[in-house]
Amino acid sequence: MNTMAPFATSVAGRDDLASTVAFDVWWAGRQKANRFEVERIPFAALDDWRFDPESGNLGHTSGRFFTIEGLHVAADGAQGAATWHQPIIHQPEIGILGILAQRFDGELHFLMQAKMEPGNINTLQLSPTIQATRSNYTRVHRGGTTRYLEFFRGPGRGRVLVDVLQSEQGSWFWHKHNRNIVVEATGDVPEHEDFHWVSLHQLRRLLRTDNLVNMDARTVLSCMPLAPSGGPGEGAVRAADDPFTAALLRSYGTCPRNGTDPGPPLHTTTELLSWFTEMKTRSEWRTRLVPLSGVGTWTRTDDEITSTDGSGTFRIIGARVKAANREVTSWTQPLLAPLEQGRAAFLARAVDGVLHLLVKAQPEPGLLDTVELAPTVQLPAAGAGGRPVPFRTEVTGADPDRVRFDTVLSEEGGRFHHAQTRYQIIEAPQDFPLDVPEGFCWMTVRQLMELLRHGHYLNVEARSLLACLHSLW
Amino acid sequence: MNTMAPFATSVAGRDDLASTVAFDVWWAGRQKANRFEVERIPFAALDDWRFDPESGNLGHTSGRFFTIEGLHVAADGAQGAATWHQPIIHQPEIGILGILAQRFDGELHFLMQAKMEPGNINTLQLSPTIQATRSNYTRVHRGGTTRYLEFFRGPGRGRVLVDVLQSEQGSWFWHKHNRNIVVEATGDVPEHEDFHWVSLHQLRRLLRTDNLVNMDARTVLSCMPLAPSGGPGEGAVRAADDPFTAALLRSYGTCPRNGTDPGPPLHTTTELLSWFTEMKTRSEWRTRLVPLSGVGTWTRTDDEITSTDGSGTFRIIGARVKAANREVTSWTQPLLAPLEQGRAAFLARAVDGVLHLLVKAQPEPGLLDTVELAPTVQLPAAGAGGRPVPFRTEVTGADPDRVRFDTVLSEEGGRFHHAQTRYQIIEAPQDFPLDVPEGFCWMTVRQLMELLRHGHYLNVEARSLLACLHSLW
Repeated sequence: MNTMAPFATSVAGRDDLASTVAFDVWWAGRQKANRFEVERIPFAALDDWRFDPESGNLGHTSGRFFTIEGLHVAADGAQGAATWHQPIIHQPEIGILGILAQRFDGELHFLMQAKMEPGNINTLQLSPTIQATRSNYTRVHRGGTTRYLEFFRGPGRGRVLVDVLQSEQGSWFWHKHNRNIVVEATGDVPEHEDFHWVSLHQLRRLLRTDNLVNMDARTVLSCMPLAPSGGPGEGAVRAADDPFTAALLRSYGTCPRNGTDPGPPLHTTTELLSWFTEMKTRSEWRTRLVPLSGVGTWTRTDDEITSTDGSGTFRIIGARVKAANREVTSWTQPLLAPLEQGRAAFLARAVDGVLHLLVKAQPEPGLLDTVELAPTVQLPAAGAGGRPVPFRTEVTGADPDRVRFDTVLSEEGGRFHHAQTRYQIIEAPQDFPLDVPEGFCWMTVRQLMELLRHGHYLNVEARSLLACLHSLW
Repeated sequence: MNTMAPFATSVAGRDDLASTVAFDVWWAGRQKANRFEVERIPFAALDDWRFDPESGNLGHTSGRFFTIEGLHVAADGAQGAATWHQPIIHQPEIGILGILAQRFDGELHFLMQAKMEPGNINTLQLSPTIQATRSNYTRVHRGGTTRYLEFFRGPGRGRVLVDVLQSEQGSWFWHKHNRNIVVEATGDVPEHEDFHWVSLHQLRRLLRTDNLVNMDARTVLSCMPLAPSGGPGEGAVRAADDPFTAALLRSYGTCPRNGTDPGPPLHTTTELLSWFTEMKTRSEWRTRLVPLSGVGTWTRTDDEITSTDGSGTFRIIGARVKAANREVTSWTQPLLAPLEQGRAAFLARAVDGVLHLLVKAQPEPGLLDTVELAPTVQLPAAGAGGRPVPFRTEVTGADPDRVRFDTVLSEEGGRFHHAQTRYQIIEAPQDFPLDVPEGFCWMTVRQLMELLRHGHYLNVEARSLLACLHSLW
């Protein structure tokens, strides 16, 4: 496997084992050291959080952090028309999700953090080096400074490898986007006890562990160019164990840029962009923030905001956190709690020996530009109402032999309570049609990676799955 | 010149003259044939347009077309903080700006339209083949069908060369973006009398005529890839008359993609994207639509909405149009009338023999993602208040010998009344500093063209200037 890992120069075996043991020891130590508890509380017990008497919106008395507001959606598109209200999280500031990188013995390593978030089902998850809203790092809540911030901002920062604004959950956040940044440090980097250097190779393996690599780490990793050459070489393709892996590896290199051109993508980039423009044009969703008190199909009790007609897929609750290693040691906050585990799956098949992913143009009410590229199947499906979700049975009923990746991972624990998604990459049968419904399009990994250099293209679930896909070689 | 025109295979001279005469005859004929008059009217005389009694917003009784609403802006960024209210045009539908292309004798030609718009200072301007809001082509206003629409939509359309959503004036429109599309027709195209085939070569020359090529045509043209190879060849560079033109031609080819690499760009694409991300992150502008009646610093009389404190740069008026060749023969509508002529200028200088343009990251309140790339100087400057505008004197006081392009062109006459902008490309002195303030960045033409494949990057004034720049070779 190691020959296929870009940037990797060390040999697999003893070093791998040693680094795995070192990681496990560090991780176990962090779990022991970080005592905390999270308990559900009624809204009245939230400190400094209040329902605005006029709008009914739930916000912090400082006017910062985030608010829970109402959203009205009139969705009119290819899938049909629907109208609904829902609560949504409004956080009008750009945060930083930053991973610090450094080369050891020629191999790129990432400084990952053991970080507690109140909504995490297992409290600690492997997180970016920094994961901070502007309120965090400008110290609105009077906590400590944000560690390692100086490597990402200001004149002393290192070489930028990735720096792009990307969206987050479009059904739960209003116009949220965060800065996804990877910086290669040039000087010495102190290793605080909550932080650990992990190689790219190791990080990919860790992605296969349930609820370990957090959402913020996954989205930053997905944006990371995989190798200076843009993908694995011919040697790696020849060494692949099976046709699926060979097709996957070729899928990273179908752009002329890296010189190996085993078969053209099914669609040119001009065609993909035109299809995406058409999908945006057809999807006429009108969205607007409204007072939460005006959201008639939802009701507020002492300890939750919940849908009264069964249409809601989440509820809003309050929580109190006590922890030793956060910027402040105790706080309360609202959380959005999904009612069910989500699902995000890409169907994939080889075309002329090159793996293509079946991408969906998915409108989501909170996305700034409404439509982004999503996995083939994403559940719950925004705006689907009672209509059937295309390719659902192909995913849920897939032959286990064809399921190439299958891991339950968590969404942002700073805002969501126990939000888990089952991420899957499923090999479609070779007779699976290339001619697909108009909202869908086959793309190579290389094509998706090129789009990922820019914002407004891949939604957060598609980005997570792309990070998972990288772990398959 | 002709050897430098991409796609061109014919020889300059007699053919050029013949096509110029043919264009002039057609244009004069259209001016004679199209009788119309535009008169200013009080708001009470607008048919089917009403001020909403509650919000004070001005809208059409059908609920479609567009509304004039209020906007609140809290601008907090590198340039300082400011807060203001203003009216803004809200048109929540994606229109099509489409140019139909076809090859004659190997040379690409565009089917351009002689089109009247109520706000045009000279009534007819050279426009895209189709220029239609969704209301137009779904026939909300019960007019005729949109000519040539079938070449852009549906199964019979030709080969798509360009298809991208691009923004429009961020100080005047709320979240407006239109589909910029160029389609190469494969079959026969009837030439209606208001339409004329114009070669790319000819079209570039016409861009140097004041108020002839309209805004919509300019933005579509700017997105057009210039040649299959991506730029002019080495031969064209060697044949250039002067160092400025040679540097300009090289600026199209500094990306590895076309194989000629005379000198690297000053910044890599990764660096440009990171700078732009940083600029977006720093610019914390909060904008929200508010009722027009709540905009206290503006007042409404019988026939205009105007700013009371002198801060406004435009007013809202009413107009009645009578015309023979529009979809409907008479109508009334509001228009936004700027108080002064605008200005948009790029400062340009060669770096290692390659022309670089000085691009500004400019927040504008109506842009969907707030910040886009703008000309070096754009007046009036959104959010500048009384502060000095960087590089203003370098533009207004430029040595005439260094002004390489200088033409007054009109903005969208369907919404703006007599809105003119002086577009300039100015060669900066060779000792002009490469080290520029943080809101500015030097980019090659090729780098800008790559970004133009995607939305949310270049604002409409920068796109217009890029189209003008193409006319310089």
